[in-house]
Amino acid sequence: MKISSKLDTLIKAFKIIPGVGNKTAYRAALYLLEHNREGALSLSSALNAAALDIGYCLQCRMLSESDMCDICIDMGRLRNILCVVESPADVLSLEKAGYQGLYFVLKGFLSPLDGIGPDEIGVCQLESMLNKNTFDEVILANSAKVEGEATAAYIARVLAPKKVKITRIAYGIPLGGELELIDEGTLAHALLGRRLFI
Amino acid sequence: MKISSKLDTLIKAFKIIPGVGNKTAYRAALYLLEHNREGALSLSSALNAAALDIGYCLQCRMLSESDMCDICIDMGRLRNILCVVESPADVLSLEKAGYQGLYFVLKGFLSPLDGIGPDEIGVCQLESMLNKNTFDEVILANSAKVEGEATAAYIARVLAPKKVKITRIAYGIPLGGELELIDEGTLAHALLGRRLFI
Repeated sequence: MKISSKLDTLIKAFKIIPGVGNKTAYRAALYLLEHNREGALSLSSALNAAALDIGYCLQCRMLSESDMCDICIDMGRLRNILCVVESPADVLSLEKAGYQGLYFVLKGFLSPLDGIGPDEIGVCQLESMLNKNTFDEVILANSAKVEGEATAAYIARVLAPKKVKITRIAYGIPLGGELELIDEGTLAHALLGRRLFI
Repeated sequence: MKISSKLDTLIKAFKIIPGVGNKTAYRAALYLLEHNREGALSLSSALNAAALDIGYCLQCRMLSESDMCDICIDMGRLRNILCVVESPADVLSLEKAGYQGLYFVLKGFLSPLDGIGPDEIGVCQLESMLNKNTFDEVILANSAKVEGEATAAYIARVLAPKKVKITRIAYGIPLGGELELIDEGTLAHALLGRRLFI
């Protein structure tokens, strides 16, 4: 029995969100219609405004409502350190971790088989950001997957002539991690990366 | 660091959906902005259309785009059986279970302490639906919680003078249920409700 084509459209629209299946979409749609129509309208206009008005920073490619994002124009930040990340979500995570420098946001990672080369992820723009600014250090914070590794290695090679210190975030055991539960690859890296304790 | 006030508004708006916390809202918002802006716009307009255009059936109070819902006007259904449920979601569940009769949708259950009495849940409208139609049976499919029980008992008393058969859906063990995992209350009801097997 079809209840309402608009309800069906709404349920189908909800399912584009990753992790939202049929049941969750149903529950969300019925909840909003039964208990919070005002909330549904706010969500509608928030989605509309965000999708139409949020663009990208021309310098670092972070999500931004203006040409230059708040981080790039903030003179209180450490402007001699650049951190290269894979996505805007990574910027938010690093902000929470207390990072104080600037960012450059790649669009994902190199994947030649899918036709994603250096141009697609913005390596040229990264080079031009380095040319226009003076950085003492570039931190490669690509993800610790094979693709992230390969992309970091490629970027390190491209940036090598620029005589800037290039670093990679550390591998190791996460805080609260139990050695017995951690995979041997991570553990091997944690051993290799050991540091003087006192 | 605030990235964008429109992103913050979107994340806040997502959190009105039950079960969506900070992380899920962040992930959904960033996913839509990074990978599916078209989807975000469709979701926006679907929410808007649903919130503004879906009303309630004047007869059974189910969600409906027109004055009478598709179930109430469907002459192919069993029009002599009425099933009383607590919410539109229950209608969808019963439809999946293969129920063929008509419905009446209460708004929740009686809760005198919260000021929710018979008028708030629509008992008058239920009576007027019974006066205007001829039903052989009214199935009370209120939930099996204390509040649902109390509401079902109240409605049964109100409808008693109408000389219609009033039934309550069965309690028992759910399909696939293991006896050792089922609470004793359910099991006691399952024993009381036992039926001839052959």
